[in-house]
Amino acid sequence: MSDVKKVVLAYSGGLDTSVIVKWLQETYDCEVVTFTADIGQGEEVEPARAKAQALGVEEIYIEDLREEFVRDYVYPMFRANTVYEGEYLLGTSIARPLITKRLIDIANETGADAIAHGATGKGNDQVRFELGAYALKPGVKVIAPWREWDLTSREKLMAYCEKHDIPVDFAANKKKSPYSMDANLLHISYEGGILEDPWLEAEEDMWRWSVSPETAPDTPTYIELTFEQGDIVAIDGERLKPHDVLSKLNKLGGDNGIGRLDIVENRYVGMKSRGCYETPGGTIMLRAHRAIESLTLDREAAHLKDELMPKYAEVIYNGYWWSPERRALQAAIDETQSHVSGVVRMKLYKGSATVVGRKSEQSLFDESIATFEDDAGAYDQKDAEGFIKLNALRLRIAASKGRNAS
Amino acid sequence: MSDVKKVVLAYSGGLDTSVIVKWLQETYDCEVVTFTADIGQGEEVEPARAKAQALGVEEIYIEDLREEFVRDYVYPMFRANTVYEGEYLLGTSIARPLITKRLIDIANETGADAIAHGATGKGNDQVRFELGAYALKPGVKVIAPWREWDLTSREKLMAYCEKHDIPVDFAANKKKSPYSMDANLLHISYEGGILEDPWLEAEEDMWRWSVSPETAPDTPTYIELTFEQGDIVAIDGERLKPHDVLSKLNKLGGDNGIGRLDIVENRYVGMKSRGCYETPGGTIMLRAHRAIESLTLDREAAHLKDELMPKYAEVIYNGYWWSPERRALQAAIDETQSHVSGVVRMKLYKGSATVVGRKSEQSLFDESIATFEDDAGAYDQKDAEGFIKLNALRLRIAASKGRNAS
Amino acid sequence: MSDVKKVVLAYSGGLDTSVIVKWLQETYDCEVVTFTADIGQGEEVEPARAKAQALGVEEIYIEDLREEFVRDYVYPMFRANTVYEGEYLLGTSIARPLITKRLIDIANETGADAIAHGATGKGNDQVRFELGAYALKPGVKVIAPWREWDLTSREKLMAYCEKHDIPVDFAANKKKSPYSMDANLLHISYEGGILEDPWLEAEEDMWRWSVSPETAPDTPTYIELTFEQGDIVAIDGERLKPHDVLSKLNKLGGDNGIGRLDIVENRYVGMKSRGCYETPGGTIMLRAHRAIESLTLDREAAHLKDELMPKYAEVIYNGYWWSPERRALQAAIDETQSHVSGVVRMKLYKGSATVVGRKSEQSLFDESIATFEDDAGAYDQKDAEGFIKLNALRLRIAASKGRNAS
Amino acid sequence: MSDVKKVVLAYSGGLDTSVIVKWLQETYDCEVVTFTADIGQGEEVEPARAKAQALGVEEIYIEDLREEFVRDYVYPMFRANTVYEGEYLLGTSIARPLITKRLIDIANETGADAIAHGATGKGNDQVRFELGAYALKPGVKVIAPWREWDLTSREKLMAYCEKHDIPVDFAANKKKSPYSMDANLLHISYEGGILEDPWLEAEEDMWRWSVSPETAPDTPTYIELTFEQGDIVAIDGERLKPHDVLSKLNKLGGDNGIGRLDIVENRYVGMKSRGCYETPGGTIMLRAHRAIESLTLDREAAHLKDELMPKYAEVIYNGYWWSPERRALQAAIDETQSHVSGVVRMKLYKGSATVVGRKSEQSLFDESIATFEDDAGAYDQKDAEGFIKLNALRLRIAASKGRNAS
Repeated sequence: MSDVKKVVLAYSGGLDTSVIVKWLQETYDCEVVTFTADIGQGEEVEPARAKAQALGVEEIYIEDLREEFVRDYVYPMFRANTVYEGEYLLGTSIARPLITKRLIDIANETGADAIAHGATGKGNDQVRFELGAYALKPGVKVIAPWREWDLTSREKLMAYCEKHDIPVDFAANKKKSPYSMDANLLHISYEGGILEDPWLEAEEDMWRWSVSPETAPDTPTYIELTFEQGDIVAIDGERLKPHDVLSKLNKLGGDNGIGRLDIVENRYVGMKSRGCYETPGGTIMLRAHRAIESLTLDREAAHLKDELMPKYAEVIYNGYWWSPERRALQAAIDETQSHVSGVVRMKLYKGSATVVGRKSEQSLFDESIATFEDDAGAYDQKDAEGFIKLNALRLRIAASKGRNAS
Repeated sequence: MSDVKKVVLAYSGGLDTSVIVKWLQETYDCEVVTFTADIGQGEEVEPARAKAQALGVEEIYIEDLREEFVRDYVYPMFRANTVYEGEYLLGTSIARPLITKRLIDIANETGADAIAHGATGKGNDQVRFELGAYALKPGVKVIAPWREWDLTSREKLMAYCEKHDIPVDFAANKKKSPYSMDANLLHISYEGGILEDPWLEAEEDMWRWSVSPETAPDTPTYIELTFEQGDIVAIDGERLKPHDVLSKLNKLGGDNGIGRLDIVENRYVGMKSRGCYETPGGTIMLRAHRAIESLTLDREAAHLKDELMPKYAEVIYNGYWWSPERRALQAAIDETQSHVSGVVRMKLYKGSATVVGRKSEQSLFDESIATFEDDAGAYDQKDAEGFIKLNALRLRIAASKGRNAS
Repeated sequence: MSDVKKVVLAYSGGLDTSVIVKWLQETYDCEVVTFTADIGQGEEVEPARAKAQALGVEEIYIEDLREEFVRDYVYPMFRANTVYEGEYLLGTSIARPLITKRLIDIANETGADAIAHGATGKGNDQVRFELGAYALKPGVKVIAPWREWDLTSREKLMAYCEKHDIPVDFAANKKKSPYSMDANLLHISYEGGILEDPWLEAEEDMWRWSVSPETAPDTPTYIELTFEQGDIVAIDGERLKPHDVLSKLNKLGGDNGIGRLDIVENRYVGMKSRGCYETPGGTIMLRAHRAIESLTLDREAAHLKDELMPKYAEVIYNGYWWSPERRALQAAIDETQSHVSGVVRMKLYKGSATVVGRKSEQSLFDESIATFEDDAGAYDQKDAEGFIKLNALRLRIAASKGRNAS
Repeated sequence: MSDVKKVVLAYSGGLDTSVIVKWLQETYDCEVVTFTADIGQGEEVEPARAKAQALGVEEIYIEDLREEFVRDYVYPMFRANTVYEGEYLLGTSIARPLITKRLIDIANETGADAIAHGATGKGNDQVRFELGAYALKPGVKVIAPWREWDLTSREKLMAYCEKHDIPVDFAANKKKSPYSMDANLLHISYEGGILEDPWLEAEEDMWRWSVSPETAPDTPTYIELTFEQGDIVAIDGERLKPHDVLSKLNKLGGDNGIGRLDIVENRYVGMKSRGCYETPGGTIMLRAHRAIESLTLDREAAHLKDELMPKYAEVIYNGYWWSPERRALQAAIDETQSHVSGVVRMKLYKGSATVVGRKSEQSLFDESIATFEDDAGAYDQKDAEGFIKLNALRLRIAASKGRNAS
């Protein structure tokens, strides 16, 4: 294990990754570079600096990636109306490619030959980090302490801290959530604890970003979202950067009890797991995007997108953002968005985000054709007969040969 | 037009199809057989008998098809988690194949050589009726009066009624909804009127099957749905037939403001149209079915279903129920459902149907493997390294040749 | 019919379209502009000028479109390894979008309000011409004489010629092929005649572009094809423009009996038809392109392309080149081709085009990994165990619950 | 390693698997059961008995699985027109599920707790064996000696044989092919040797099952293949069992130089490899099956199959025969085959298998509709106008809003 000289660690500043710093120094006898990013998880990142220094780290990277995160990862993903297994908005999955990219960039900048992360050996995140790392820097060494060490219980971790003088905030530790959580601007997730029994309802005090629908306001909130080429650029007419759009929608959604999700999902490593998620802004964005597409996107382009979406979602969920298949799918998706512009009006109320209106200068909705009233010849109903006759031809021939009997 | 001897008409008993009876008799100089079905639209069908008799119809078919409708059409469709364009639960589309099948059966029984329907030349329903008819009886003549006649305004219709002594219930006519509506056990739909402007919010008094979320009860309702092989067989432990399940879920959903939908959709005939739908029971069923699948269905079978679904939805929406491609897709879908059994617990509250628990003897969720706690060797975290390494191999080789630079 | 002022006709110079010129002038009392293109059909186009003039046409367009045809239509299509229904290389389908585009361009240049074509009402070509025309110029009037007139037999056509002094080359007419043919640089097609019985083998003297395998040379011909970004740019080291590549491959293929095809295909208008095709160059290109991709394209990108291809082929076959769905698919396909460069060596012999070698600086084939010999640690065989274990996990869990019994 | 009591080995009787017998006995101190199957590899299997006995094996299974192999594995796969990466007919992949099933059956019969195979750690076969084994018997232990031992060179193997008195047929060993080969009734494959350079052409003397096209007869052979429900049941009118059909087609194909293939393929473990294959009968079957489908299968069912095929091929190639996704796909495929019956006439000549005729009582080819001659009203050409108009509607609306400009 002595061949690693310098390793860049995705460092949260928390206890676990602090232990990892020490363990890496000790086990690999190597220099550790820490990288801490603000991707909207809602915690200060600057305190990580002092903690890393205390652990003897000399190269410390702390970055605000919120703008890049939403603009280059979340937004492109939402152009595809991406949902994994019919429910999950991929809040964790979509943050990994950016973290990985920065880990590799920093490895290149600092001359490090390895990266390390704090994900366990059972989850999807290890896969996402490592696939990305290998795709971006094929010779990199990846260290996943949770797959290597024997600190497999809280007791052993504490003993390790004591032995190595790693300060433990026992107060914080005591009130530690029973859940394994992960947060960024798109969502916060919960796993473990009582959730390991999929029959048990999540406890109300688990949820952190949203009020319950029951305690949400008794009057609805209406908002208008402006889209340009598939992306939201303004809320109620106010132009905002992507990450400010998402922040504001998180607030609006959370205040109205929107975006809670409780599912059992299929992990890439082969097991089912139960997770709860809060994605207030994302839930609103998804419905709004579908609504503006419904008005401005061609039918066959829309259906093609719907057929590609499950694959695209799987690619991202499984960790293949930095892959040729993701780029090919993205090219198709982005190609369809050039006219997806306009305004969507939504009603937020006690857990529901409902579309109530949509308009666009790019609208393909043609009232003069769709109307139940006189259309002044815009549409010739007689065309329908030929349309049906030829579409039915193959079925009629088959039936005339004795097939299709009901 | 004299070559038609007898025509079977899909007859609602309303004014429009009553006019069609007379128009067919007059225009085609043929016998008219009426067929009126109860598919859960919520109106008495028996009164259609007297109306038809008054129009001189001698062969009158009135049938209760609710059980067959839900068992053989709605349920199979829900096994696929079917949603058209991300939103629409296909409430109208799924009723057409059964109506068509009965029209053709009756044509065969009565020796009729034609069928007729009251759908317009702009919509999807004409296509669905006629594709089905040609698939089941290739030589049948289909008459679509709305594509042929010149009774293109309400005034002309009224004049026709007066001229032909067709009784008009002016009271009913007066309070006639401004919307074009269609209902069956799965849903009720609204089109036309102010909905022709997709920016305008639907008026509260348009909705008929559900209370608004605002006026729904302030306390949630919890229910437990029991699935066997993909189908709901019991509510709160009470075994029910499929159509009784759906009736009860419609009541539960409607009482809690669940199942309203307001969309712009792409019709098969090439135009966009705006429709509002209430699908209380279906909305609950969809989420519940996904939840029981999440616990009992294999990952790759589930993903395959997700990839096939948009195509399957399109096939049904476009009217190809009675087609080889629908049967092939159905075979794949049904093959996956043999273990989709268990119980889903849901919370209904002010517009939201939320899954809060699921359990099954067929569960593939393995707590001993998924746990964050000690798994006693059920899963070897070291396997993950090889898994990732080989999945990354193609990306690493590409990167080593200079591709994938971030 | 008097509302058409000027119509642009796709004019071959042959008898049928000459009749159409006259018929349009007479029936629509309008000006006719003729458009004749060389797309490699192997006949002089210049003689069309005198014929058109003789018919009183004043605006005559004659163009050599071979370069544009292959570069902008054939080549992009071959990037997708496009085959319709497993066999057909879309030789006719791919020529229509360009003809349509030029018809519309000329309509715009000459102020014409209509276009006309000589395709029948049973085939795919009418659909392809007209979908393209409507997509490029929505208000255009399309005239399809074969769907309108009563010149439905050869006798009636002759009578019409006589009456209108249209010169008939009786000698040519006499030795007229019994087949309906269509040719361009990509292929020549045959329909009708004895081919209408799909059990009968095509007669040897029907084929025009290729010798029979039996009469092809007894020694194989080897060639090397150089690809850059998915397109062939050189043959045996000689750099050529796309249409010169295709011409030369047609010669090489035809001389070696390559590219004959005899199929029953499904037309978009709902019937099956039997067609024979000669596509010598295209057959070579398809195999060569797959071969260079096999060496340089990532696995998942390749598989994605294979999954998209049938849809892409259908889109082109059905006439939707000028559609958003084709553009989206093309974007995905083109995105994958940036590294598809290198050389393919092929053996041409008596009907077969066989790949015997391929090399590339962009190769992803890594001998050091793939070797059966010692790989010096490039690949750790132990990784395979973890890879298999986790891929098997879902199957093992299912089996442990009693599923999958063999 | 002492926890294995009895292991069932896939035993060829060759040197490598003989070494494995000894190595298993020694390393795991366990009983070894050998299983040797005739799946049409063209070598006697009975001699394996004496060899196994000489190695001290007491439970020896030798079985003729040819009928089951073709009937239950090859034929179902060919119903899907299955081709991996556009070229490979999956000859090796399709044999693995049956071998695995028998290994597990025998493990159950003999009370064995493990299975073993002779596949290396770089290939697909290890994956196919092991995924199948885990799917059928989740608790089974799988031993893959090539991933474990240090006998990584021919020299070490020989030394091991000498030390353990394993008889080596030095004569046979000397003339050993430089290629790694695998054969069964469907194909024979070659890898390694000079093939590791994908630019080098395979040597003529490598090929074993087919003559070269150059040396094949100078006159073509015509055959007629009779299909029932998607499967070939007779050749030239003679009814044969599936494996006799395949044997005979191998002979016919091989004699005419048909079925050679030289490709670079993407392995599931992440690398590209170059392989050569001879699949004479399979090559004929594939084209013939497509031909009978072209006449008898509905267009949309056929296109659906084409869209599903790449996925189905990938599933089989990767080793997931015993999976829910394969069963679901198979259900869809089989559903389409009920009318795929009739006769295909083929010409075999110097490397090419060409369809020249097809007929069927289930034919959907309707001459009266498809004819270029008078169709007596079977098809109304005027229907085409409406068909095109409505299919064009979405494109026209888009164009009228300024999109689609050419």
